[in-house]
Amino acid sequence: MARVVVDVMLKPEILDPQGKAVAGALPRLGFTNVVGVRQGKRFEIEVDEVTDAVLAEVEKMAETLLANTVIEDFVVRVEDPSGATA
Amino acid sequence: MARVVVDVMLKPEILDPQGKAVAGALPRLGFTNVVGVRQGKRFEIEVDEVTDAVLAEVEKMAETLLANTVIEDFVVRVEDPSGATA
Repeated sequence: MARVVVDVMLKPEILDPQGKAVAGALPRLGFTNVVGVRQGKRFEIEVDEVTDAVLAEVEKMAETLLANTVIEDFVVRVEDPSGATA
Repeated sequence: MARVVVDVMLKPEILDPQGKAVAGALPRLGFTNVVGVRQGKRFEIEVDEVTDAVLAEVEKMAETLLANTVIEDFVVRVEDPSGATA
């Protein structure tokens, strides 16, 4: 079994109200070192094995279902189940 | 400027309805190589520089604000802005 991760984030030019809300709450909780926060989605996709064909399929999945490519960017990467990027 | 990423995922034993919904939709879209899908949150936290104190602060932030540690696990890692794990 292998894990392919798709990270979906709003494009930089798009306002991120959730990220702004988190960034706004941090000083009240005593966290002062933060310049900015952006929030997005993380998909962990379990596949039997990672091949070029499977990666191309995950790329297509991200384009058509996981991300709204008008306002979001996505990154596809292989991660071994321990969490380190392979 | 540096970027610290906090990945928040539901604990493995917790039912993930969003992940199930995505996994259920994939075959209808012609994607057949997928064993399972889990969906979580990704926070990109911009800081001036990464020090042990800043990482400890982000760890605390994740525990108190970004993740519900009763049902969610989180991973904190430094990522250079190009997206590669530093």
